[in-house]
Formats: sequence, C-alpha cells, structure tokens
Amino acid sequence: MSSQYGKKLRVSIFGQSHSPAIGVNIDGLPAGIKIDTDELKAFLKRRAPGQSDISTARTEDDAPEILSGLAGGVTCGAPLAIIIRNKDARSADYLELRDIPRPSHADYAAHIKYGGHHDTAGGGHFSGRLTAPLCAAGGICLQILRGLGIHIGAHILRISGAEDDPFDPVGISVKDFDVIRRNPLPVLRQEAGESMRLQILQARENGDSVGGVVECAVIGLPVGLGDPIFDGIENRIAWIVFGIPGVKGVEFGSGFAGAGRKGSENNDSLYIDGKNVKTYTNHSGGILGGITNGMPVLFRAAFKPTPSIGLEQNSVSLSREENTVLHVKGRHDPCIVPRAVPCVEAAAAIALYDAYLYR
Amino acid sequence: MSSQYGKKLRVSIFGQSHSPAIGVNIDGLPAGIKIDTDELKAFLKRRAPGQSDISTARTEDDAPEILSGLAGGVTCGAPLAIIIRNKDARSADYLELRDIPRPSHADYAAHIKYGGHHDTAGGGHFSGRLTAPLCAAGGICLQILRGLGIHIGAHILRISGAEDDPFDPVGISVKDFDVIRRNPLPVLRQEAGESMRLQILQARENGDSVGGVVECAVIGLPVGLGDPIFDGIENRIAWIVFGIPGVKGVEFGSGFAGAGRKGSENNDSLYIDGKNVKTYTNHSGGILGGITNGMPVLFRAAFKPTPSIGLEQNSVSLSREENTVLHVKGRHDPCIVPRAVPCVEAAAAIALYDAYLYR
Amino acid sequence: MSSQYGKKLRVSIFGQSHSPAIGVNIDGLPAGIKIDTDELKAFLKRRAPGQSDISTARTEDDAPEILSGLAGGVTCGAPLAIIIRNKDARSADYLELRDIPRPSHADYAAHIKYGGHHDTAGGGHFSGRLTAPLCAAGGICLQILRGLGIHIGAHILRISGAEDDPFDPVGISVKDFDVIRRNPLPVLRQEAGESMRLQILQARENGDSVGGVVECAVIGLPVGLGDPIFDGIENRIAWIVFGIPGVKGVEFGSGFAGAGRKGSENNDSLYIDGKNVKTYTNHSGGILGGITNGMPVLFRAAFKPTPSIGLEQNSVSLSREENTVLHVKGRHDPCIVPRAVPCVEAAAAIALYDAYLYR
Amino acid sequence: MSSQYGKKLRVSIFGQSHSPAIGVNIDGLPAGIKIDTDELKAFLKRRAPGQSDISTARTEDDAPEILSGLAGGVTCGAPLAIIIRNKDARSADYLELRDIPRPSHADYAAHIKYGGHHDTAGGGHFSGRLTAPLCAAGGICLQILRGLGIHIGAHILRISGAEDDPFDPVGISVKDFDVIRRNPLPVLRQEAGESMRLQILQARENGDSVGGVVECAVIGLPVGLGDPIFDGIENRIAWIVFGIPGVKGVEFGSGFAGAGRKGSENNDSLYIDGKNVKTYTNHSGGILGGITNGMPVLFRAAFKPTPSIGLEQNSVSLSREENTVLHVKGRHDPCIVPRAVPCVEAAAAIALYDAYLYR
Repeated sequence: MSSQYGKKLRVSIFGQSHSPAIGVNIDGLPAGIKIDTDELKAFLKRRAPGQSDISTARTEDDAPEILSGLAGGVTCGAPLAIIIRNKDARSADYLELRDIPRPSHADYAAHIKYGGHHDTAGGGHFSGRLTAPLCAAGGICLQILRGLGIHIGAHILRISGAEDDPFDPVGISVKDFDVIRRNPLPVLRQEAGESMRLQILQARENGDSVGGVVECAVIGLPVGLGDPIFDGIENRIAWIVFGIPGVKGVEFGSGFAGAGRKGSENNDSLYIDGKNVKTYTNHSGGILGGITNGMPVLFRAAFKPTPSIGLEQNSVSLSREENTVLHVKGRHDPCIVPRAVPCVEAAAAIALYDAYLYR
Repeated sequence: MSSQYGKKLRVSIFGQSHSPAIGVNIDGLPAGIKIDTDELKAFLKRRAPGQSDISTARTEDDAPEILSGLAGGVTCGAPLAIIIRNKDARSADYLELRDIPRPSHADYAAHIKYGGHHDTAGGGHFSGRLTAPLCAAGGICLQILRGLGIHIGAHILRISGAEDDPFDPVGISVKDFDVIRRNPLPVLRQEAGESMRLQILQARENGDSVGGVVECAVIGLPVGLGDPIFDGIENRIAWIVFGIPGVKGVEFGSGFAGAGRKGSENNDSLYIDGKNVKTYTNHSGGILGGITNGMPVLFRAAFKPTPSIGLEQNSVSLSREENTVLHVKGRHDPCIVPRAVPCVEAAAAIALYDAYLYR
Repeated sequence: MSSQYGKKLRVSIFGQSHSPAIGVNIDGLPAGIKIDTDELKAFLKRRAPGQSDISTARTEDDAPEILSGLAGGVTCGAPLAIIIRNKDARSADYLELRDIPRPSHADYAAHIKYGGHHDTAGGGHFSGRLTAPLCAAGGICLQILRGLGIHIGAHILRISGAEDDPFDPVGISVKDFDVIRRNPLPVLRQEAGESMRLQILQARENGDSVGGVVECAVIGLPVGLGDPIFDGIENRIAWIVFGIPGVKGVEFGSGFAGAGRKGSENNDSLYIDGKNVKTYTNHSGGILGGITNGMPVLFRAAFKPTPSIGLEQNSVSLSREENTVLHVKGRHDPCIVPRAVPCVEAAAAIALYDAYLYR
Repeated sequence: MSSQYGKKLRVSIFGQSHSPAIGVNIDGLPAGIKIDTDELKAFLKRRAPGQSDISTARTEDDAPEILSGLAGGVTCGAPLAIIIRNKDARSADYLELRDIPRPSHADYAAHIKYGGHHDTAGGGHFSGRLTAPLCAAGGICLQILRGLGIHIGAHILRISGAEDDPFDPVGISVKDFDVIRRNPLPVLRQEAGESMRLQILQARENGDSVGGVVECAVIGLPVGLGDPIFDGIENRIAWIVFGIPGVKGVEFGSGFAGAGRKGSENNDSLYIDGKNVKTYTNHSGGILGGITNGMPVLFRAAFKPTPSIGLEQNSVSLSREENTVLHVKGRHDPCIVPRAVPCVEAAAAIALYDAYLYR
C-alpha cells in the first residue's frame, strides 16, 4: 500500500502521469452534504498547469468527473470517486529516462524497487500530476470544512531571496486568504509576488529551477481535535504533506526558529477572552500535545527546487553501468511552489477533516 | 485511537506519568530473533532521568519487564509486551494544574477534549515519560536492524547558540555513532557538548529552559524502502517523530535550507561506484519519491524549549474563568534535547523496521 | 469507511447501482505481473447479469476499463484502478422505494443511517451490482495466485432441495474446477445443476425466490499463511465474504456439523507423505489456529433467498408512518446463488492474496 | 500483525499461555466513563478455568490488573492496559509437543510458520487462555454498552445431542440473560444444561471431547450501526468471533437454515409500532446491508470439539520425519463451550462498541 491516507476519511489516490486517467476515491464522507462542482473545478484550476509564463507548457483542463458518491448532487454515504482523464501526454519525451536516472528524482530508487517495471512516462505515479486527485479530494474537504466554520489558506512565504509577509499567528483572518487569492501569485503582499516571479523567470532563463516555502493557516478549528502521541494534528498533517512531491521539511508554529529560543520567549501565555481561553502569542502553531488549542493552526512546508533542470547533469547508464551525462527533456515548471499552494491547502483539509470525523 | 504506530509492526503505547505502569505492545515481530535485554536496558538508560546535573531530579530506574513475545529469549512470533513500573511519582505536585493550565502544555486542550477527565498528574499520557516505552520498542528495533546491517545514530546539532558539527551527508559511518556515545553529551565534537551543557545550566539557573535540534542518520539501508505518496520514508518518519513531545519541525536532507537553493545546487548527481549507483552529494537525505536511494537517510527534528519553567507566567483559572498567574512546580528538565536523542533514534528505528517488514 | 478491505493489498470499492460508474482501486500489487485482460473479462462474464433464463433481465456488458496501474500490460507498482460504466439503469423503477422500504433489504436501515440521503436507485451502494468491482479485483488476484500455484474454485452446493456433491476435502483437484466451469450451472454433478435450475424457475413462476449454499475450495496454499487470533485465514475470509450481499453464514471445514461431533471423530490425524506432513481427513478446512496447514482450504457461504420477490408484502410508509402493502418492481434474480459463485471465488482470492503479501 | 482488532477502539492482545503475563491494551475509549472493576472480575470469573467438574483442572484466579487508562477509577482518554499474571503453568507437560504436533491443533502450522521458534508451552499465543484478555476488554465494553442501553447475552444452544431453547428472535429481553446467568450452565432451560453436563462428563470419561454451538443476542442497538460491504456488523462480528479458538462457523439470523427457504418465508415484513418501524419476524438477525435495523442482533458460533483428547492419535515426528502415535498430556477441557459463552459476549461487545464509536 502506498497511496491511501486517513483513519476515518479514507482517501485513495491512483493514476500515473500518462495512464488513461488519474483519480481518487474518498471513502467515509457523511451523507447529506451538497457538493459544489463548479467550485471544485475552480479550486483545481488553481493547481492546473499551463496557465502562465512561469509554469510547465503541458496543458490539461483537469476536468474532474465524479463517478459515484452523490445522489442529486448531495453526498449519499457511499464512496465518492473522481477521475481526471490524461490528455496531453508525450511519453516519447521520457524514453531515455528508463536507462539514465534524473538526479534528485525517484527514477533510480524506483528502478530498483520495482525491478524496472515502474511506469517511467512523465514520472508515472511519482509525478506531480498526482496532486490533481489530491486537490480534488482536498477541494471537497475544503468546502465541507467551510460549512463547519473552518477556513484554510496558504501562501508562498519565500522563493529564493524573495519573501512574503508571514501570517499574523494570532490575528489571521479569512480576509487574508481573500487577498492571497486575488493576487497573481498567491502571496499576501503583491510586490513580494512580483519579486518571486522574477526569480522564477530568471531560473527558467538559466535552465535552472528554484524552490521555496509555503505557509498555511487554519482558522475556526474547535479546541480538542487530534490525539496524543501518534495521532496528533502535527503527525497527521506531516504524514500527508510529505506526500506532496518535493516537500523536504514541515514545521509548526515557531518550528526550527523556536528551537533556538528560551522557554520564557517561546511559551504562549493564556488569557480569558469572554468565555474562551486564548493565548497572547501562538508559537505553538495552535497545537499542543497533538491537540488543537483554539488558536490558528500554522505550519510551513519546504519545497526543494524542481529537480528537472535544463542544464547538463552527471548521471549513470543503468544498462551500461557507467557514468554518463544527462540532458532532461520534457516540459517542467522552473518552480512548483506557486502550484503547490493549493496542494498544501488540500492536504491540510483532508488531514483536518479526517481528524474531525475521527474525533 | 491515538497511541499506535505502524503498518506491519504495530507499536501500541500505554500509560500515564503516574499510572501503575507504562508500557508498549509490539505486534508483528518476526519469530526467531534473539533479544539482548541487557543491551535494551543500556539503551533505555540513555533516556532515563536523574542521571546528571542537567536533567530532572525524578529518578526512575526504568527497568523494562518483558511480559510476552519471547520463548527462550528469542522472539516467538507472538506480540512482545514490555512494561515499566512507575515508582517515583509525586502526584501532589500537580493538583493546582487541574485548574490552571500551563502555557504551551497540552493542559487546556486536553481539558476541553476529555471534559476534565484526563489524568493531569505528571502530564498523564502527554508526559515525556511516555518516551520510555517508545524507546523500549525502538531499542528492540535497533538491535534487529543492526543485525540487518542498518545502523542509526543521532546527536544534538544545536542548543541555543551552541552548535555541533553536522553529519557528513555522504561519508557518515558507525564510528561517528561511537564517538557520539562516548561523549558526555551526545555530540560529535566534545567542546560543542560542553557549550551546550553551559547553556542548559544557565537556563536552569534563570528558571528558564532551552530547546534545540537533533540530527539523525541511518546507514546501511537497502535501496527501495518506502512507497510513493503517503507511505514514503519521509511520511513515516515524520509521522512517528512528531509523536515525541516537544517536536515542532522535521526536515530531511537539505530541508528548509535546500528550499532556498537552485536546482543546479541542490540536485544530487549520480555516479557508478563498482556495481552500485551513488550520489556525489546527499541533499535529498537518502530519500527520493519517498523511497530510499541507498545514500544515508538524514533528518533533523526541532525541539521547542521545555514549556515547564520556574518563572512566573500568565495563565487562567478554568473554574473561575479569570486570568491568573502560575508558578509551575514539579521536577523538570531545563532542556529535554539530550534525553531526546535516543528517542529520535528509537522513533527512526521503529519507522524503518516497519517499512522494512512492509516492503 | 466502509468499502475497503485488506492489510497490504488494499481494495477500495466505489459506485452505486445507477451512478455513472462503479469501480475498484487496488493498492499494493507488486510490480512486474502481466495481467490478462481477456481472462479478466471472461471472469467478469461469469458474474454478469442477463445471460440466461434464470437471472435478471438487466443487461450490462460489464466491460472493465483499467485506468491505471499498468505499464505495457504489466503491473507497475502503482495502484490499479478499474471502472465499469453503468448503462442499463432504470431509476424510475425505484421511486416508490424511497418511502416504502422493501422487506429484508437495507432500505429502512439505510434511510435512518443516512438521514434519507442514500441513493435508493437500484439499491445504490448496497446493490449486488457492486460485486462486479469485487470480481474485477478478485479476478486479478485469481490470475496472480494461479501463477503462484494456488487455485480457487467454488460451486453451488445446495439450492432448496437440490444438492450437489460436496468437494472431497482431501482429494480436490483443479480438474474439479474445470468440471464445474464446463457445466451450465456451476456444479460438480450436472444433474444437480438441472434440479437447481428447475427450483429457480419454479420460484420465479411463483413470484418467489430461493437461496442456497456455495462451497469454495483453495488448493496449493503454502503452509503457514495467516496469523493467530484476529488475522487468521478464517477471520480474513469471513470478513470479506460477509461483504457479498445476501451472505448470512460462513463455515470452515466441518463447520456447524463438526460442532456436533466428538473430538475423536473431528480431529484430523497427521501422517508423513514424503517430505510433507498431511492429514488423513480435513475437518479443519485446511486452517488451524488461523494458519494454513497445507491441506485444501474449504469453506461454505449461506446465501439468503433474494429479498426482492414479486409477491405482495407488508411494509410501511415512512412518510405517512402507517402500514402499507408493497409490490416490488424492477428486474431481479429469483436466485442470486449461481452468479454469486464467482463472487465467492473473487472474495477468497483477495483475502488469500492479501494474506500472502502480508506474510 | 495478528492480534489487534478494531477501527476506532483498538484492542491489542498479547501473551502466551506460560509467559509471565497475558494482557490487552484498549486504545480509543472515550474519557469520563466509570469502570466497575468488581464487575469486571466477576465477568472474568465466568470464563476462568478450574471452577467445576467439567472444565480443566488448571487453576488461575485471573485477577486483572489495570495498568493505565484510568484516573480516579474513570477512563481518562489514554489507552487502558490490563494484565493478568500467569501462575499455574506446567511447561514440562508440553515438551514432547515440540516434535509431535497434536492433531487439529495449530502445532504443525505454527512450526512451519515460525521456523520452530513459536512458544509451544501450553499452546503459546494460540492457547484458549488468550481469551482472558479478550474477556477483559469485552467486559469493559459490556459495561459501557449497558450504560448506553445495549445488552448482550449468550447461551449454549447445543452440545452433542443436548439442545437448549433458541432465543425468541423478536421478543428476547434482558430477563432471558438473567435466567441464563442463574443457571449452573449458561442455558435458558435448566434441564438442557443438565443434559449437556452429562454429555461433557461422558466425553471426559471416554478420554474424548465434544463441541457445540453458542447463540448470542444483542438488544437495544440503535438503527443504523455498521456500514455497507466490508464494514457491516456481520463482517465485524465474524472477524472477531473467528478469533476465539475453536470457532469454525458463524451465522446470523436464519443463517444456513434460511438459505434453504423461499424469499416469501425468509423475508421479514415491516410494520409501524408507534413511532418505530419493526419487523414481524427476524430472520435477518437484526442486520440488513450490514446495518442494524433496530431488531435484536442474533448470531450463532460453531465450536469444534476440543482437539486435545486423552485417546491415542496418529501423528508424526517432525525431527524423524516418520509417523508416530501421540498421547496428549496436560489438563484440558473436555468441552470449551461453557467457558466460551462469555468469550462470545465479549467479542460481540468489542465489535459493537467499536462500530458504535466509529459511526
């Protein structure tokens, strides 16, 4: 097993970059929830390729087809399966890769693991394209969570030297998410987005790529979600977010920076706010002992630079067992971070709705 | 469910800080493996409290009792259960905490989640003491992995300003682990350990605490362990490592730093080394597409400063619904990081042995 | 969650009787196995409706479309998803059933469970039609098991008074399975099949239905498959076989009859047969302590008579909260047992291949 | 993994017949439930050996020690672990069995599976003694379910020729359970119990054993528990009940007998009873489409005769690879069925409480 997530909401992803279709099955949705398919399509569009000068030229309309799970547009208690047909697949681009693994791609590890039988076309099941069904499942969870008063938003915090404003850990609001979605790149401060865009364009021009950091916030969560030890919200979110290709780090609240502070600096003091208990600061990222404490949940995911670059790289020929030089062909994003933003939201939505149903 | 980990090796942790005992059940161990209980005790000792001037004064000998799973000292295919009796428990220290939640502890979140019924004594099931059964399970996995040629070692990379040398990502060897274990604090460079010790002592003197970063390496893993998307080695390790109290971030290979690099800088080029394929660098931390590539697995975990500090802090009275001031009593580590090092090794061992059995 | 089975081979079924499609996702198949799609279609045909005078008139060609999981006709290590489009759906037949639950159908229980939102058309997710994806997954497992020397065959043991010869518990062979598949109804003794056919036709004529018993055998299993207590082969097979609509009992070996015997009569004595250990009798059905012992695995599943009958029945109007009388419309099998035979084989194949992979 | 059950309530059983202790960990119990330990002990006593002339002479007081999960006698949200020490273990009785497998025991299958490393003393992890922790977990669930108005009772339906009255499928009440528990053997009709006792004594006298059938009923369940396909109440109950050593068949409602009826005979017609919908008959055993329909849940489990008998039997020497004759020593029940009755109740309680929590 590899591509299933969740304890009560079971999300199963299938498909390869160039298989007839990719898709997802969502088992465990409650009955009686109206699904807005137009909104789902709009959400998927935020992830789709081919929309601007900074993403891959592969064009896929990514139209989701819901095969089951609805009756009259409303969830019926049965598993909800969605597929997306693959259309613009150019498998010929990938023939060489059967023999010469791309640096920092899964090619070599998969070659050994699957005895040479894995689908190399377009990266197969390892392709970033598999985030489309993740977003399909997450888009549905986002709709449902919103109906419960829970809102999730992410933005690009950093790309190369260009840095956006971080979320205000205690004061973040839905308005911030609106600002992010109106900007051409998903950032709080538009000029930061413009700098990022320039970084990306320059990387492309150099046949190179850049990585970055996505910050995600969740507001409106009830106190008490998550469980201690292995089923905490941090465990659950990290488990799923590391499922997005390219993620190499996840941190909550003050994270790695907080590890350098003193307790007196990093602790979040409590106060009474009407009937509620709140904290003045939120270095804990809304999670203590694995359980939500009512403050916004805040985490960041580090994305490595796209490993597919135009520059020549050292690799090996598996058949000839000798060193060689590789020129990666195919169409690639010089930076996947902008398109990763909805993926992070989707992953968080699945993790949190699963935790919500499991409570 | 909350305290179970694993897909084939099922590790179930139970106990509270002041319950009659804490323990772990390990289901899924193969039969026929000799378990060295002296070595297990020695491993648990590395985590045990009360051993030096920089840890809590609570003394527990943490003697593990193996209740089942062995026949003649060898695993017999049945679940292996281990318990550790709690002895030096002073529940009276914690009475006040039923009403006044400690900042950056799980107290308030747990109070709401469990309707006031959670065990507050010593932190209950949230206590760092629950890492003893984690280490008991992990200590067994470490023994077994070593028999498979797989070695795991961790060290303190950073405490406040004091920093150890990082592991050499490609050249790390068992000798490094030996060096770490011979040093008074688990570090590669003894002077770094001395600086850390001073930082901790100073924090204690100030009634404060410090956090830090643990770096962990795994060598000898076969190529091809782990699965794409949700069952990758990164997902599995992050899932379990966030189960160690105080962890707020996990990163693999170049992690957050790598997110700031270009693809041409961060990619790991491949070369032929005899019959094997290796990489010149190891920014990927030995994992690509969730799967081991034969290079050392490398990750870091960020620990927040111990939230229990001697200084006065703002909190609330849950019963009176008003602000108040809290003085935390009880015995606490001014820094949990030194004792967390074997916990990180144990967590990694469980995750990787589970992945190994599941392959 | 409801429609997922397996510990290592994860089979997720989706779809409703009248949704755009039904299907299954199979996660965990090893890479490198050739799948014969013609054979898969032929296997699905054994379950398909509309093929004779004793089954429902609904016609579906049940052509499976494999969406993912293959590369060049061979499993590639990624999840294998199969869908089957629904074509001949007459939802209008089922409108009345929204208000008047059919006796011995899930209608009323589902109405309460899903708050009236479940898909009633054709029985929705409860429909026997959902055994088509079960058979699709099972058909693939059957192919793979055969490659491992493991063969599964089932036959109708009993319908009303008509009874087939039981399998020879120790001497059963692949030839028996061949005989069964050549007969018009899946039985060992053709005349038994003819009597059964008459029973079914008479039931249909009377607007009534009949149930029956399916017996299934598995040969070629290695010794040592399955685990004690909850993961035994009996637990696993029962867990999945009760997922076939209409099954109300499962027994292994001498089963309920054996419960009436003395130990000296029911015990299976052992003897040496060359290098192997065998038993003279096989009242244990090839399973002891949950683990295969090398003798044929033998079990029987009891199917209740089809609850949809033409005769008038007492029911209630849920909206008017009063008693009423119901005439079930729609097209139904007067006996599902013949078409259930491949379903039982498929279920056993999934359960055993999962146990095989998990060992 | 082998000895874990449940989706939300995770029950993990450990121990061998002669290991230092046996026990169970229950993860997922809600906080705030008072546990009556005296009642738990009384329940375990119903299963304990050495209490009458018809059970094994091994005496174990089976005193459960609760190690964790309670605070002030009330569940605290943390896993609840219970151990029972093994005392009266005579391992020497079992030495011969390492070489000569007992007919219809797991000995040979386990020998191959575990490469000779399994614990043979007293049957190891396969021993009926492992039903003590099952009953400990089930006893707690029974208490909790009763608080929810859900009552579970079982009785011996049949031993050899002696037969008790079956439960009235629609009219069963708590009073029936009281009658059963007052009788010397757990039966509805005391004279039936007396006949059974004679059958058992005669079997013992002959050095033989007898099996039997246990019938179990559950009343007070809400409508709508369970899920379609693989997570139905039938799947869940069968999955766990086959975990009780000796069970070879499970049937619900009219079960195998119902398979011989016509639909018009087996269907349960509905009627309005005040605000509720009920059925005149209950051939469905309270479950339709895997979901409870509000009628009593009714099932029967077939227990094979105890395989340990005093009579000489044919077996093999594994070391010498030749046929031999075996005389089983040790202390055994000539019939496990009376002591199995609380085990069946416990298993049903765990399955249903898990389904209840998972709903």
